[in-house]
Amino acid sequence: MPKQQSNIARPMDVLRGSVDHNVLVDVKGNRAYSGILEGYDIYMNLVIKNAGETIHGENKGNYDRILVRGDNVIFISPSRGDSQ
Amino acid sequence: MPKQQSNIARPMDVLRGSVDHNVLVDVKGNRAYSGILEGYDIYMNLVIKNAGETIHGENKGNYDRILVRGDNVIFISPSRGDSQ
Amino acid sequence: MPKQQSNIARPMDVLRGSVDHNVLVDVKGNRAYSGILEGYDIYMNLVIKNAGETIHGENKGNYDRILVRGDNVIFISPSRGDSQ
Amino acid sequence: MPKQQSNIARPMDVLRGSVDHNVLVDVKGNRAYSGILEGYDIYMNLVIKNAGETIHGENKGNYDRILVRGDNVIFISPSRGDSQ
Amino acid sequence: MPKQQSNIARPMDVLRGSVDHNVLVDVKGNRAYSGILEGYDIYMNLVIKNAGETIHGENKGNYDRILVRGDNVIFISPSRGDSQ
Amino acid sequence: MPKQQSNIARPMDVLRGSVDHNVLVDVKGNRAYSGILEGYDIYMNLVIKNAGETIHGENKGNYDRILVRGDNVIFISPSRGDSQ
Amino acid sequence: MPKQQSNIARPMDVLRGSVDHNVLVDVKGNRAYSGILEGYDIYMNLVIKNAGETIHGENKGNYDRILVRGDNVIFISPSRGDSQ
Repeated sequence: MPKQQSNIARPMDVLRGSVDHNVLVDVKGNRAYSGILEGYDIYMNLVIKNAGETIHGENKGNYDRILVRGDNVIFISPSRGDSQ
Repeated sequence: MPKQQSNIARPMDVLRGSVDHNVLVDVKGNRAYSGILEGYDIYMNLVIKNAGETIHGENKGNYDRILVRGDNVIFISPSRGDSQ
Repeated sequence: MPKQQSNIARPMDVLRGSVDHNVLVDVKGNRAYSGILEGYDIYMNLVIKNAGETIHGENKGNYDRILVRGDNVIFISPSRGDSQ
Repeated sequence: MPKQQSNIARPMDVLRGSVDHNVLVDVKGNRAYSGILEGYDIYMNLVIKNAGETIHGENKGNYDRILVRGDNVIFISPSRGDSQ
Repeated sequence: MPKQQSNIARPMDVLRGSVDHNVLVDVKGNRAYSGILEGYDIYMNLVIKNAGETIHGENKGNYDRILVRGDNVIFISPSRGDSQ
Repeated sequence: MPKQQSNIARPMDVLRGSVDHNVLVDVKGNRAYSGILEGYDIYMNLVIKNAGETIHGENKGNYDRILVRGDNVIFISPSRGDSQ
Repeated sequence: MPKQQSNIARPMDVLRGSVDHNVLVDVKGNRAYSGILEGYDIYMNLVIKNAGETIHGENKGNYDRILVRGDNVIFISPSRGDSQ
């Protein structure tokens, strides 16, 4: 059975498709940021609007907008109920 | 006896062959993600669908889709029963 | 519904738009610096004027000007009340 | 006495010569993987078949096939009794 | 109101402007070096004259001249009373 | 007195001159490997024959041949009694 | 008053000027090596002759010659009494 791979989801395509949607960003140091993805670049630097910060699972604050440096990122997930 | 190496398995070929299959991704910080590999790139960034997360071996949650940044990856394994 | 992405906020654009504004810079090692962003470069090296330093949340000092090396940065946030 | 270096063993040549042979791969975090080397690339990403995993010296599992990301590798050794 | 950015302070310009002035260099591992900046390069490697070293805030010694490797730097500050 | 630097010892020249000689390789994580250097590359990846491994100063084993990934290396020393 | 910078001390120039002189090399992991600098390269890899090693300030041994990998270096200092 020949393998069909026309539907391969490239990482940068997933980022592009997540712009204007809620994302959860898991970051080194037991941190996470959730909010609306406003932008990104090829280094996985991320701009997040209305970002809630949790550290070790506790809510630590909210930011109108943050720019997360890409090399801290462990994973990015489109939020449940908002993923495409 | 001459060595035959026509069957060498290049790492990127293994990733390509794992698209649409279950994979287990072992990540720094005692984390692992298992799910269906949807895509990847040359940095080993990975897109995983229906991803289950374990931390220190305990199930910590499930995500419809996650994008794991490649430099966190320790190893990737096609799951047993689903490997090629 | 077609997706409009003309308003994507590129990380470097966010930095450029933050020049002359207050920023909070969260840095590895439980440090943070707040002050006026004077400049930046593509490595995310940052020049901050009137920079207050906190370590583990305690105020540790003030600097007329600091140049923070980009690879220490976790995130940058335009300060509340001053964001664009 | 002039030095003869025609027999210098380049690292990538050693990897190529180890394909289809047993290898022991020592990895950061007190981990090791032993199995048959199926492939590699210039980043030292490795494909290992029938891979046994040990953590702190204890057998932790077996994988039909794993792809180990190169930057975790400390050393690779052709196994005794199987080295060239 | 159009934004004026002709006065943006590029990180490398700040380094160039600090040559022959006192600087405080904060380094990973709770170290700091203060002295006169003699030179630098694009990797943020720094040459410091009459450098005093502190570790965890304690004075640990003095060096006629040190060359600090750039990737250890957290921040560089022109010293108070000597900044431009 | 003009400085003579025709005898400068470039790091890669030292490696080349150590091929077929005993070396001690000190590695991150309190490890060391001693044996005969068989080869190297510009990343400081090293091939060592008859390699003895010590961890925290205790002999932990011997390998017919190992390939040490360069970015783990702290220093390499031609062994006493065998250095050039 | 125009700034004179013809005397800027570039890091690589400082290394070149230290060849054949005593240097102290401070290395990650509370290590230091002192000896005569024999050579270097642009990665700050260093060749040191008659190198004394200290770990946590205790003398741990002496080496006829070592090649220190550059990315372990914190700082390099021409020794007192021998600096230029």
